[in-house]
Amino acid sequence: MLGRSYESQNCSAARALEIVGERWSLMIIRHALFRGITRFGDFQRSLGVARNVLAARLDLFVEQGLMERQPSSENSAYHDYVLTDMGRELQPVIMALTHWGDRWAAPGDPPVVFRHEHCDGEVRQQTICGDCGQHLAIDEVKAHPTASSMSLA
Amino acid sequence: MLGRSYESQNCSAARALEIVGERWSLMIIRHALFRGITRFGDFQRSLGVARNVLAARLDLFVEQGLMERQPSSENSAYHDYVLTDMGRELQPVIMALTHWGDRWAAPGDPPVVFRHEHCDGEVRQQTICGDCGQHLAIDEVKAHPTASSMSLA
Repeated sequence: MLGRSYESQNCSAARALEIVGERWSLMIIRHALFRGITRFGDFQRSLGVARNVLAARLDLFVEQGLMERQPSSENSAYHDYVLTDMGRELQPVIMALTHWGDRWAAPGDPPVVFRHEHCDGEVRQQTICGDCGQHLAIDEVKAHPTASSMSLA
Repeated sequence: MLGRSYESQNCSAARALEIVGERWSLMIIRHALFRGITRFGDFQRSLGVARNVLAARLDLFVEQGLMERQPSSENSAYHDYVLTDMGRELQPVIMALTHWGDRWAAPGDPPVVFRHEHCDGEVRQQTICGDCGQHLAIDEVKAHPTASSMSLA
């Protein structure tokens, strides 16, 4: 049976988007991931986001499990907001969004390039088959519903 | 100089999110990509989305360049909404969102599994270095601003 409403569309991508789809949320996590920012004041300064917006987002991230609030080692009056594994694993999502945006939605050269820390090579994301190891083109990937699915893709 | 507002955060990921971040938009493109749906009525039936919402999203996709409106080959009273390359290349973004959502945001088994069309193997996304070819862990990827950047990551 096909889902008949948004609620019944059992879609992990949509669930993911509900958590990180808000634009400030994405920017905050991006700065935590790639700039290593952990302090409220550092997020605020580098993003120029309103303090109330930032506070609400960080509280939500802690509640959702994307970040942990830790006492700062340097000064106990401050907290660090540290990405959990759940938060860190958004990295491929943000890279994929960035690559697509660079190609299709951003004028001019890419503002940011992702590089391998050790050899400085440019980072790529590839879709491969876990069985035969082949690199897959877009048309070669099909979505299959599982037993727990209520929708077909 | 660091960006001081959202507008000055020259972020391709945020631009991408502005285009596909709305939840119905994501679902429509997902059904076009993985189920090959092209007709208004088929999107409507399989998603259970309100007709006015669907019509607005499809019009926007055509305007943004994600889809092309083509006369149906079977019946000229109908149109097909066909993904362009810009639309098709959202596939890795949607797979990355889905993988993350499966792992962290969806209860139970994944509702959908992506498989290689030819050998039926499960599809993976990997981050590799374009220079040394190494498979990269999250910590091994760094974001570098380019000359056209106003923000540092």
